[in-house]
Amino acid sequence: MSCIWNNSLKLSIFGESHGVGIGIVVDGIPPGIKLDFDKIKIDMNRRRPGKDKFSTARKEFDEFEILSGFFNEHTTGTPLSIVIKNTSQKSKDYSKTKDMIRPSHADYTGHVRYDGYNDYRGGGHFSGRITAPLVFAGALSKQILATKNIEIYSYISAIGNQKSDYIDSLDLSSERLSELDKEFPVLDKGAETTFKEAIIKAKEKGDSVGGKIRCIAYNAPVGLGSPFFESMESRIASLAFSVPAVKGIEFGKGFDISELNGSIANDQMQMNGDVVTYKSNNNGGILGGITSGMPIDFTVAIKPTPSIFIEQDTVDMHSREDRKLAIEGRHDPCIVQRAAPVIESVMALAVLDGMLSVQKLGKWWSDEK
Amino acid sequence: MSCIWNNSLKLSIFGESHGVGIGIVVDGIPPGIKLDFDKIKIDMNRRRPGKDKFSTARKEFDEFEILSGFFNEHTTGTPLSIVIKNTSQKSKDYSKTKDMIRPSHADYTGHVRYDGYNDYRGGGHFSGRITAPLVFAGALSKQILATKNIEIYSYISAIGNQKSDYIDSLDLSSERLSELDKEFPVLDKGAETTFKEAIIKAKEKGDSVGGKIRCIAYNAPVGLGSPFFESMESRIASLAFSVPAVKGIEFGKGFDISELNGSIANDQMQMNGDVVTYKSNNNGGILGGITSGMPIDFTVAIKPTPSIFIEQDTVDMHSREDRKLAIEGRHDPCIVQRAAPVIESVMALAVLDGMLSVQKLGKWWSDEK
Amino acid sequence: MSCIWNNSLKLSIFGESHGVGIGIVVDGIPPGIKLDFDKIKIDMNRRRPGKDKFSTARKEFDEFEILSGFFNEHTTGTPLSIVIKNTSQKSKDYSKTKDMIRPSHADYTGHVRYDGYNDYRGGGHFSGRITAPLVFAGALSKQILATKNIEIYSYISAIGNQKSDYIDSLDLSSERLSELDKEFPVLDKGAETTFKEAIIKAKEKGDSVGGKIRCIAYNAPVGLGSPFFESMESRIASLAFSVPAVKGIEFGKGFDISELNGSIANDQMQMNGDVVTYKSNNNGGILGGITSGMPIDFTVAIKPTPSIFIEQDTVDMHSREDRKLAIEGRHDPCIVQRAAPVIESVMALAVLDGMLSVQKLGKWWSDEK
Amino acid sequence: MSCIWNNSLKLSIFGESHGVGIGIVVDGIPPGIKLDFDKIKIDMNRRRPGKDKFSTARKEFDEFEILSGFFNEHTTGTPLSIVIKNTSQKSKDYSKTKDMIRPSHADYTGHVRYDGYNDYRGGGHFSGRITAPLVFAGALSKQILATKNIEIYSYISAIGNQKSDYIDSLDLSSERLSELDKEFPVLDKGAETTFKEAIIKAKEKGDSVGGKIRCIAYNAPVGLGSPFFESMESRIASLAFSVPAVKGIEFGKGFDISELNGSIANDQMQMNGDVVTYKSNNNGGILGGITSGMPIDFTVAIKPTPSIFIEQDTVDMHSREDRKLAIEGRHDPCIVQRAAPVIESVMALAVLDGMLSVQKLGKWWSDEK
Repeated sequence: MSCIWNNSLKLSIFGESHGVGIGIVVDGIPPGIKLDFDKIKIDMNRRRPGKDKFSTARKEFDEFEILSGFFNEHTTGTPLSIVIKNTSQKSKDYSKTKDMIRPSHADYTGHVRYDGYNDYRGGGHFSGRITAPLVFAGALSKQILATKNIEIYSYISAIGNQKSDYIDSLDLSSERLSELDKEFPVLDKGAETTFKEAIIKAKEKGDSVGGKIRCIAYNAPVGLGSPFFESMESRIASLAFSVPAVKGIEFGKGFDISELNGSIANDQMQMNGDVVTYKSNNNGGILGGITSGMPIDFTVAIKPTPSIFIEQDTVDMHSREDRKLAIEGRHDPCIVQRAAPVIESVMALAVLDGMLSVQKLGKWWSDEK
Repeated sequence: MSCIWNNSLKLSIFGESHGVGIGIVVDGIPPGIKLDFDKIKIDMNRRRPGKDKFSTARKEFDEFEILSGFFNEHTTGTPLSIVIKNTSQKSKDYSKTKDMIRPSHADYTGHVRYDGYNDYRGGGHFSGRITAPLVFAGALSKQILATKNIEIYSYISAIGNQKSDYIDSLDLSSERLSELDKEFPVLDKGAETTFKEAIIKAKEKGDSVGGKIRCIAYNAPVGLGSPFFESMESRIASLAFSVPAVKGIEFGKGFDISELNGSIANDQMQMNGDVVTYKSNNNGGILGGITSGMPIDFTVAIKPTPSIFIEQDTVDMHSREDRKLAIEGRHDPCIVQRAAPVIESVMALAVLDGMLSVQKLGKWWSDEK
Repeated sequence: MSCIWNNSLKLSIFGESHGVGIGIVVDGIPPGIKLDFDKIKIDMNRRRPGKDKFSTARKEFDEFEILSGFFNEHTTGTPLSIVIKNTSQKSKDYSKTKDMIRPSHADYTGHVRYDGYNDYRGGGHFSGRITAPLVFAGALSKQILATKNIEIYSYISAIGNQKSDYIDSLDLSSERLSELDKEFPVLDKGAETTFKEAIIKAKEKGDSVGGKIRCIAYNAPVGLGSPFFESMESRIASLAFSVPAVKGIEFGKGFDISELNGSIANDQMQMNGDVVTYKSNNNGGILGGITSGMPIDFTVAIKPTPSIFIEQDTVDMHSREDRKLAIEGRHDPCIVQRAAPVIESVMALAVLDGMLSVQKLGKWWSDEK
Repeated sequence: MSCIWNNSLKLSIFGESHGVGIGIVVDGIPPGIKLDFDKIKIDMNRRRPGKDKFSTARKEFDEFEILSGFFNEHTTGTPLSIVIKNTSQKSKDYSKTKDMIRPSHADYTGHVRYDGYNDYRGGGHFSGRITAPLVFAGALSKQILATKNIEIYSYISAIGNQKSDYIDSLDLSSERLSELDKEFPVLDKGAETTFKEAIIKAKEKGDSVGGKIRCIAYNAPVGLGSPFFESMESRIASLAFSVPAVKGIEFGKGFDISELNGSIANDQMQMNGDVVTYKSNNNGGILGGITSGMPIDFTVAIKPTPSIFIEQDTVDMHSREDRKLAIEGRHDPCIVQRAAPVIESVMALAVLDGMLSVQKLGKWWSDEK
């Protein structure tokens, strides 16, 4: 792997922040899917910086060009690839700062990993900008899943130490989530106010703040995923931790479930007509690595943006001496709201992969018998 | 994938709780490693049930037999495989209960996933028993890593709502962790008392309780892992969520890091002689998906054992009617302490994979230049 | 990879000739397939040595034990694994000969590859004996394919410089091939005589002889496989070259097609009722990497058994001196007839993989639209 | 897989003949390799059509643009990707001929595989044009291998039924092959004359002709590859059959080895100073799937170009009626000479992958011990 996620759905991502272009190859998608590009652009715009005071003033225009895999307005089934040219990434003079490690960035680890040959400008291959192609792939996947009535939403469940109360996903309708403001999705006006205040407060100090995003997929069928290494949790997590700044993931009640007794934590069951249903969804719609038919539900922790204007202790990789660093330029005080479409993409890609995989692993044979 | 984890290190796991045997094939390990079987047995015994009042009275004897890949007391470099015969798994009469879904188990999802053909006895392929071969592979990996001075430890950081305070991994020496009681590893006497009390309290009510395990790897070199899909976090998480009952994972300060400002969360740096070091390890030893040279540090949430003696609402898959179910037999009130060696195996396998991968991705070429 | 073939169908093979046991894990197979073990044993017996004067007098009893993935007489859909214990492999004293490289064996390459730690007894992991589990997996796959009416046959098309005339696969009915003697499948009495004579002649001189096996799959649907790296030819070839002694593979007319003009080589077409058909099958049922609906047809070249009683020049790996070597013991003068079920397994595994893969890559979505 | 080859070296190929662009992502290459673009262009020009009377008059300009993975004149170690825009592919009116299957092309199989949604213009994703990015990746790999003194050459060993005599690779020096004319590499003047005559003869009849290419890698170390599914033969073959028109592959003496007795076929051995060497290389430098230190040597069969001007029987996919078809436009009477750099790329990619893999599988550990 590395740049390749090689399941039933295959992703190959490439690019550096200030190189010629970034992009993705998506293979394994069914042929004959009609795509709505306006919807894809909406998600890509949600991720884009430079829109409002909660994110950086730096502008990026993520104009993607489809290179292959799309013909006569439909997916062809062959590898669908896009490129986003880095037209607006002015390459300022990085020579002065290139040896100065920005704390909590990948400057040092990337330097060692690639023997000093990696493109250091703007974070290079480690830049959050590389998630733009991932959002394209996710938005594409969402549209494919929509043909099977599967819907995916996310909302910001915490900014800094301000948080929304946990609501069991069975009590959160897809309608409610579908109506949230896409640019800053929160469950209620109160959260919007406290969350935005927390961001502005951090910004005013030249500091940054993190948060949490909860993502839910509705109407995924029971039976996706496998035990062990291809569990739905493993698939989702392997993608989620591909997103820079994600430092934790939990399914359903997640870490809080570990504090409960089994009699409270267990999702008890009942028939609903002829359908097997659960009375709660503490397990986040996944049991034994396999979807249960309940909403697939996970939350990720996003660390505060590493780039801050406050002076920090660091070192110079070249001279190997201690240094003080106050990062300059335009940076997000909070990337949580911009990360929401990326996290939805994680869900969409993993669920689509689950849909494609389970097909091959049994259904078809029995369908025809 | 599914039963296969196919990175530089390759794992292929198989077996059902009450079938003929369970086992694992491990490929990609270096030849010429001398193995200490007593150490492997210690870890396998830690996972084994039936030892004390904190776990089930059910006894399993995990006598593994090496089938291949081991010759003249050393690994050969060819696939190393083991089988553990299920000699003590008496197959009681499952016919009465086979359609009764045990809440929070994989009974229903497995039934749908495999069209009703999966072995339902004792959880079948979904049984926690299948982690025994994983512990073998992990113990094997630990010994290989030890030849490079890499050490891996874990401790129970919470049982139910009782928890130990978070300590930055830079302040937790490997010596301290190496001296913990392997059977119930906790940081201090106080935790031991409150944690064990929490388990006994749950047990007395016929209930169960969950908890958290923190795992730390010392002395892993800087530069393991890759950005995106092969990030060290992605590798570790994909393995961690292969372990039944894990519902969350966080690296370093994890979810709590999302509540901090960047100025607090960022791991600032300093030279330590000629070595680049960090002043804190909130990122858990991984930045940009790549190890930083600091301890690799993650915590998992373990849900309470689903099997409880308290009556629960459930359904009969065959008749499709509502039912009441009080699970009988011998079950763990808490599996957290037994899961500790499994979680250490997750770390060991991922770090060994990282060690093997980074070799191929560059070092060698530059070493010789 | 290495011991792992990781497509939609997943194989993990292990074992050494004189170790404890050999075996395979097969994952990705559909649940609910009823297996006929007598048929599996027939194929395993075809591969087994020690049956007649055309093969070695050495006897192996390939008693496989199913460890997992099989329950109530059906496949469960979870990993199906078997082990074959090496009960009859008496470990004679190899210490004298272990440094003596047997020409055209893997003694030297294996020694270097594994730093001298590989099990050298009887060829170790390189032994042809390791194909026994492959034949199990192939026989299993054949039965699964038979539920879709797909049949696989092979015959010996050459022994040494004696060969049968090439017949277009469209002119070779599955009925005719199904009736061939399974132990020494040839198209006619004449071939049987000349082929067996060639083997006996080599045997009498203490020499060995090679040959060719042609394998054909009938009734595979059009549309299996993909362009490029997952072409049906790539899949089949990657498996075929996993079989020791295979040194070449060709599809349809293969090497001979390269000698033709396009006007002769091209498979022209016609409607057959409403079905698109070809007038010839020079391309072996695969175009653009994808099955055409015609028989899938390939031929492999099997090199003469490397073990011969005639003295050869070789070297001693330890002393690094020139040596003369006349191999002793019991060895096949020809393994072509024993390789036939192995080659059929290659076809069966690749076609089953193609069937499982194509499901995931499109059909399902369109089936329901 | 499909568009992804996912070994230690990772390839992700995309594009259609008449789409926006074609390209490749190459991941897993070492950082810090300085590239000579002129050499890459030479190989790409060798593949390019429209140069002389032996190939089509159609001109393609394969101007590649590096999008990522290259910085300050060196590889960065992160995914290196290129795009070649299809600027000169005028999209003539395909609507009339789109349902007319061209015999021995992938028109029909691709149509079925992709439910009719694939781009049919100029062969779409099945076009030989898609090998241009493969040649880029191969030329890149050759340069990386050259830093380890590994050299790769090929020559045309047959056109139609005209062929060069087989020479053991030990008797073919790299110097001799390095001096061959790159545009039409043949061993001697005689072959050049008869081969070119065969092409012109076919061309004059509006027909086409196939041939064979032999490819040899010099100075690859002993010990690359693994037994079974990752044998060097399996790796090479899986790539070779990704190249349109390849219908067979053989290693060393290949099919002819099957006609020999073991006493002739076996590669006997001798010490050469302190180096273990072979007296012949009938096995093509690979034993047990692992390189022997002798030249790696294989030959592929290239079928005659399917596009011919002679009328053929075919069918209309839409109307499902029989048709006559004489293909118009500009087409190669022979693609063998253009395929040579593609086949060298197959070798280069497989050998580089072998070099990268073996690192991870052992050497490193023992190197430091």
